[in-house]
Amino acid sequence: MDFEKVGQELHQFAAGLYPICRSITGDGIRESLARIKSLIPLQIFEVPTGTQVFDWTVPKEWNIRDAYIADGAGKRVVDFRQSNLHVLNYSIPVHETMPLRKLKPHLFTLPAHPDWIPYRTSYFKEEWGFCLSHNQMLAMTDCDYEVCIESSLEDGRLSYGECFLPGSSEQEVLISSHVCHPSLANDNLSGVTVAAFLAKLLSGRNLQYSYRFLFIPGTIGAITWLARNRKSVGRIRHGLVLTCVGDAGGFHYKKSRQGDTEIDRAAAHVLHHSDESWEVLEFSPYGYDERQYCSPGFNLAVGCLMRSVWGTFAQYHTSADNLDFIRPLSLAKSLRVCADIVNVLENNYRYRNELPYCEPQLGRRGLYQSTGGQAGGEDIMARLWVLNLSDGKHSLLDIAERSGISFSILSEAAEILSDKGLLSKVSEDERIGTTGVIARDECNLRRS
Amino acid sequence: MDFEKVGQELHQFAAGLYPICRSITGDGIRESLARIKSLIPLQIFEVPTGTQVFDWTVPKEWNIRDAYIADGAGKRVVDFRQSNLHVLNYSIPVHETMPLRKLKPHLFTLPAHPDWIPYRTSYFKEEWGFCLSHNQMLAMTDCDYEVCIESSLEDGRLSYGECFLPGSSEQEVLISSHVCHPSLANDNLSGVTVAAFLAKLLSGRNLQYSYRFLFIPGTIGAITWLARNRKSVGRIRHGLVLTCVGDAGGFHYKKSRQGDTEIDRAAAHVLHHSDESWEVLEFSPYGYDERQYCSPGFNLAVGCLMRSVWGTFAQYHTSADNLDFIRPLSLAKSLRVCADIVNVLENNYRYRNELPYCEPQLGRRGLYQSTGGQAGGEDIMARLWVLNLSDGKHSLLDIAERSGISFSILSEAAEILSDKGLLSKVSEDERIGTTGVIARDECNLRRS
Amino acid sequence: MDFEKVGQELHQFAAGLYPICRSITGDGIRESLARIKSLIPLQIFEVPTGTQVFDWTVPKEWNIRDAYIADGAGKRVVDFRQSNLHVLNYSIPVHETMPLRKLKPHLFTLPAHPDWIPYRTSYFKEEWGFCLSHNQMLAMTDCDYEVCIESSLEDGRLSYGECFLPGSSEQEVLISSHVCHPSLANDNLSGVTVAAFLAKLLSGRNLQYSYRFLFIPGTIGAITWLARNRKSVGRIRHGLVLTCVGDAGGFHYKKSRQGDTEIDRAAAHVLHHSDESWEVLEFSPYGYDERQYCSPGFNLAVGCLMRSVWGTFAQYHTSADNLDFIRPLSLAKSLRVCADIVNVLENNYRYRNELPYCEPQLGRRGLYQSTGGQAGGEDIMARLWVLNLSDGKHSLLDIAERSGISFSILSEAAEILSDKGLLSKVSEDERIGTTGVIARDECNLRRS
Repeated sequence: MDFEKVGQELHQFAAGLYPICRSITGDGIRESLARIKSLIPLQIFEVPTGTQVFDWTVPKEWNIRDAYIADGAGKRVVDFRQSNLHVLNYSIPVHETMPLRKLKPHLFTLPAHPDWIPYRTSYFKEEWGFCLSHNQMLAMTDCDYEVCIESSLEDGRLSYGECFLPGSSEQEVLISSHVCHPSLANDNLSGVTVAAFLAKLLSGRNLQYSYRFLFIPGTIGAITWLARNRKSVGRIRHGLVLTCVGDAGGFHYKKSRQGDTEIDRAAAHVLHHSDESWEVLEFSPYGYDERQYCSPGFNLAVGCLMRSVWGTFAQYHTSADNLDFIRPLSLAKSLRVCADIVNVLENNYRYRNELPYCEPQLGRRGLYQSTGGQAGGEDIMARLWVLNLSDGKHSLLDIAERSGISFSILSEAAEILSDKGLLSKVSEDERIGTTGVIARDECNLRRS
Repeated sequence: MDFEKVGQELHQFAAGLYPICRSITGDGIRESLARIKSLIPLQIFEVPTGTQVFDWTVPKEWNIRDAYIADGAGKRVVDFRQSNLHVLNYSIPVHETMPLRKLKPHLFTLPAHPDWIPYRTSYFKEEWGFCLSHNQMLAMTDCDYEVCIESSLEDGRLSYGECFLPGSSEQEVLISSHVCHPSLANDNLSGVTVAAFLAKLLSGRNLQYSYRFLFIPGTIGAITWLARNRKSVGRIRHGLVLTCVGDAGGFHYKKSRQGDTEIDRAAAHVLHHSDESWEVLEFSPYGYDERQYCSPGFNLAVGCLMRSVWGTFAQYHTSADNLDFIRPLSLAKSLRVCADIVNVLENNYRYRNELPYCEPQLGRRGLYQSTGGQAGGEDIMARLWVLNLSDGKHSLLDIAERSGISFSILSEAAEILSDKGLLSKVSEDERIGTTGVIARDECNLRRS
Repeated sequence: MDFEKVGQELHQFAAGLYPICRSITGDGIRESLARIKSLIPLQIFEVPTGTQVFDWTVPKEWNIRDAYIADGAGKRVVDFRQSNLHVLNYSIPVHETMPLRKLKPHLFTLPAHPDWIPYRTSYFKEEWGFCLSHNQMLAMTDCDYEVCIESSLEDGRLSYGECFLPGSSEQEVLISSHVCHPSLANDNLSGVTVAAFLAKLLSGRNLQYSYRFLFIPGTIGAITWLARNRKSVGRIRHGLVLTCVGDAGGFHYKKSRQGDTEIDRAAAHVLHHSDESWEVLEFSPYGYDERQYCSPGFNLAVGCLMRSVWGTFAQYHTSADNLDFIRPLSLAKSLRVCADIVNVLENNYRYRNELPYCEPQLGRRGLYQSTGGQAGGEDIMARLWVLNLSDGKHSLLDIAERSGISFSILSEAAEILSDKGLLSKVSEDERIGTTGVIARDECNLRRS
């Protein structure tokens, strides 16, 4: 992968999405989905306001045209046209003149970073407000201000997009990223972008698993999708939530609720063999949409890949999470890690050693050093490990974890040994399963 | 808990017991049990000398009125009236005059602590002797001494006390402390005192488990109790031996033989969230009466709570283990830890999340922060953890261990969520069991 | 064990074997087996060239009488009579005169250690060559050299030796060492010597297990043996490969493929309680004949005991692995460790406590300190541990691991307690098995 070139491409795509004022519903998310659809096949779904989705209800649709606070002279001291973060997301319309004293409870600032605008929302409580830099607020005087939010909050639809790439098996890998944040780059245009380019990368390939990419509003979108797909969710074998994958920090992989699934182990393995710093985090029921996928009724094998962890970097949910905060190289390497994880999932075969009694004679097949008395290299060690552990029970990932050798080298060794007739693959059906599976939510949590 | 006030009360109770000359049988232990009975309901049992209890026999009853070593001038150089430790516990009567040379094999001192009197016993070998400070012995001259022990060792009874607090379930929690040591404060008036006050604390409450407090002579008392209650010992679900809980040291919890029982985990959890230093020790077949409860035929879930570990502090089994060595605050905080452990056992419910598909909408129930974009506090995290892991399989203690949040905060969260109809309790019967259980000793260790 | 005396004896035996030019076939290995047979009962097997053994074929037999490189003046500049390492092992015959340029591809040196002769082989590719010190090669000039290898590579036999010591059970312990290396002392005359003396040590004893010592050519010999004994290999319960056990380094025990077998635990325990430095290594499918015993079709419980690990010390496979490199004391202590491991296997009984309810009264049996109030020593702790864990499930090794007390002290305690009627042995049949077992290779790896 040409990281420089790919990175530029990814960053440009994120930059195109950046100015749009997204929210959990409305035209901003529609415009964003349209841009993603220009890159990959995408089916867009619209779910009416009022639809019951488990314990939640699809909210009214929010749209906004303009918003500002103007001083007595009519000068905009806070202006939505400068940054869509200035409006408390989901603000109801307002047009009034009021003194600063009365306005203040509606203003949100970050005193610790006086030049940054915070990002705040009020989805489920009807409210209006402005977010502004602390310095902007300090510059305001005790006079009357004209306050205007030209928004609408009306019955409409919640939009989301799905990109489905069919594979040999009906079993699925889910890649989910939230696409509801306005001008914030790392959280989560980075996730949206890497997911979209991963879909593009995979769309030309012969795949074992089917892949489903979701571009959805956070929380309510994931809940809506799960409610609408409850019967088929049992097909999901592995999943990843992608967020905050564009900054300069090292990787963090947060494990699924189950904690020891194949995706958890594949992600840890790939990060371990990457050239970047990384850490594996335990599951916790806070964060992004893994909260929903890992709720106890579903308990899916879905982890979350990040670079810097949400909430731990100063720029999080502020105007400083901008296009400078995400790096082309970081985006490209995140895409590489995702592709490597997919590669593990796709190729994590179990094999049977066809000559399991003693070692086969590799030398006469040209697979061993011919002069005895000195040790072989990693390629020979990979062959020996694959032969030794291929008893039909150990997957290549098991062998990778035990041997310390990277999956890709072992996978190559397995291919060579298979070509020589020394290994046979455990059948694809036995490995992945290709027939319909009873939806997990139907058989889970029964009280019997 | 007002630690100062409670601590004073505990220390005074211990001080009342301190002067009594206790042994494994006799009037000293009877007088002690009578004092405990003034605090809590206590049934006193008397088991005749000669009763066979497993491999042991209830010994003759020992009583003592006076003992001394007097010099030629009739001056008592060692005097039982000064300290009941001066007599080798269980000494047979003696009245003779003999030179120091002949007396010496009967004298026990501690050269390393020349001012302290050691505590020694000879329960099972008929013997007489004196314990004295090393300085006392050095002051003795090569003249003849009058040696007098006015004791009796005759057929009688072994006494022990039981305080039984019935709960909703017949399943029991056992709290055991040995009450056979003479004037030694930490070992074990501290354990006796904390156990008695724990019983007092629980006696007014609605309890799930039944609680059985034993005040027994060490070793032979526990063996006697187990022999007499062999059929019903299967009811014991959890147990604690209390000893050395009054000194200024940090806590030590010694695990049961099984090593991973609920009491082991509850004790570790409570200590972990206490504000004192602590350590969990592995089981070993030495120590106090956990040796008997954890013998392979019973293998009960009984651990041992201590502050300083017996045998590791210099004052152990000497006259320096006196009322100054135990602290009111230490006693009170030990009582607090015991009460917290009981609290975990009583409330270690498993719940079922009634809305297990995705998260329930906590916001509209007033259980979540209303302005989005910033993280919630520990109370919200506790709610999310309880909801996420309440699949009917995880207990609150499981959740506490995984989340790192204290049991009490999670328990409160579970109550709030239950009130809102989001959780239902797994039935008490399923959790604790209320019907008779075949005694464990009947089904254990069979050779089939 | 008198380490000095035994060490001298072992070193002398190794010294007698040192000058012989061994290979995987031929008279050198026959002469070596004859010397071993002078020490212990040994059955020698001869397997014809061309015999199919799994994926391999028994090679032609190699013998050598002389070899040299002579300069124009007829002076031998490289001379087999000086060191049998000078010939590439298994060289085909050659007698030619050629310029240095043409000779060079047939010369092997070690530039990093210019005075040492490397050891190289070419068993499976027909080739000729010389190994020499780098300084020897530098001294050669650009003239013509007479090159002579008087070897034969013809149909013949592969030889190996077995020493079988029958025990009460048909279940076997396998001790295997390769005996195919020419003048190399640590690798593997040390292993051969320690194995032979271990057999001598055990031959006079009443043994529970039967013991089978193999002195075989590496790789092809182990494969040949396994192919010829495939049906009875299921009798092997424990096994050790011995190699590089004579140098001054600390011990390394490489675990079996299974990784948690009794031999793995016994070896770790013995090393832990030895007075030498040691390390336990994970299994890897490289090394010595454990590669074959631990191939997936057999997956035997065979580990490998070493001091310095092959390939990690500079002298490995060079002329510097000579009689000075192995130490009498190291050899003797390696023998001691092997004997101690055997001792664990032989005596790793499970017992049943005959008085499992509470502790039995050790005092009246003279097995406990009589004066109470002070702690007992390790012998008393050993008795308490054995009694506490002897529920018919825990072996003495289990108890040793949990208690931290050495196997030998626990074993002694178990004997004393058995003598007093407090313990009974779980029957030998139940422990080891004495009847024929279906060969493991017949029931393993079936696809069913």
